[in-house]
Amino acid sequence: MKKGILLVISGPAGSGKGTVNAHLLERDDFVYSVSATTRAPRPGEVDGVNYHFISKEEFLHRIEHGDMLEYTEYCGNYYGTPLKEAEEVLASGKNLILEIEVEGARNVKARYPDAVLVMLLPPSYSVQEQRLRGRGTETEEKILERLARAKEEILCAPAYDYVVYNRDGCDTEAAEDILAIVTSEKCSLRRNPTVAEDYLNA
Amino acid sequence: MKKGILLVISGPAGSGKGTVNAHLLERDDFVYSVSATTRAPRPGEVDGVNYHFISKEEFLHRIEHGDMLEYTEYCGNYYGTPLKEAEEVLASGKNLILEIEVEGARNVKARYPDAVLVMLLPPSYSVQEQRLRGRGTETEEKILERLARAKEEILCAPAYDYVVYNRDGCDTEAAEDILAIVTSEKCSLRRNPTVAEDYLNA
Repeated sequence: MKKGILLVISGPAGSGKGTVNAHLLERDDFVYSVSATTRAPRPGEVDGVNYHFISKEEFLHRIEHGDMLEYTEYCGNYYGTPLKEAEEVLASGKNLILEIEVEGARNVKARYPDAVLVMLLPPSYSVQEQRLRGRGTETEEKILERLARAKEEILCAPAYDYVVYNRDGCDTEAAEDILAIVTSEKCSLRRNPTVAEDYLNA
Repeated sequence: MKKGILLVISGPAGSGKGTVNAHLLERDDFVYSVSATTRAPRPGEVDGVNYHFISKEEFLHRIEHGDMLEYTEYCGNYYGTPLKEAEEVLASGKNLILEIEVEGARNVKARYPDAVLVMLLPPSYSVQEQRLRGRGTETEEKILERLARAKEEILCAPAYDYVVYNRDGCDTEAAEDILAIVTSEKCSLRRNPTVAEDYLNA
């Protein structure tokens, strides 16, 4: 059984990450990585579906034992990716999607160099701005804050392996580009270093 | 206009290279590289379609002026890939397929590091043997010679970027894997080094 690909997908606000990931998750060879967190569940959130809700003590214990692939602290709560669960999914041959921000993505790559880092982008900064304003649900201050944050994130693109553009109305195409990346990575010599021996002995 | 990909496809006897390439060439974004040769046209061969038939003098002149992407001499005749034509196709945004052997592939990569080298393989050595014997058109001596040559070629796989298996009855899948490789390469950061600047200025 060939190992699955650990696929880290980051995308600034307005990139349509959620929709694109939903397309990938319609396939049965993709699994979404459920994060662990120390924050309290919100009404309607289900343990093991939205998050693995664990105590701060347990979280710190896992960090100490190297059982978190990456983690971050935000507003006094910890969020992270359980390593064991990720390894089990990958060993089963399925691809695991981690939807995390740029700092987490870099940490994953450092810890697990086989990870494939994809940055999903709106077609351009001006379209991104339109998308954020088009939602009409946020204050001007909040929009400017999100755009500033998006700029910072995009400047981290060179740390990624791939960049995929999510053009208007083309989220299926963006998902297909990501599928192509996974297929291609599986064919890469880097992931098949013993191809000649394997071939001749099969 | 984004540059096309120079796609070098090598495959030992029995890999089904011809069929797989034919699938790719059904698309209008793939062009087949017509080699130049100094050998005389055979009956039915058309200049510019099967080969560019040129004189030995002209060929040597082109080599001297760096106008051959790669070339080889075989039975006293020269065969090679005209560089200018390749550059024109790539500049037009189309992908160019070079169907060449391992030595030529290595020379292309040395000369043009952006080339993507794909080795197409039968599913296993034993299937390869069956395919060659199944043709029923060759002597045992010729078959053993081709198998020995195939072994040598496969040992060169580590010099390639990708390996694609052509399973029985799945030549469409093999072509799709190669398409995925091209899509993926186009998304790679390596080919989009200025993505952040481009994005923010667009």
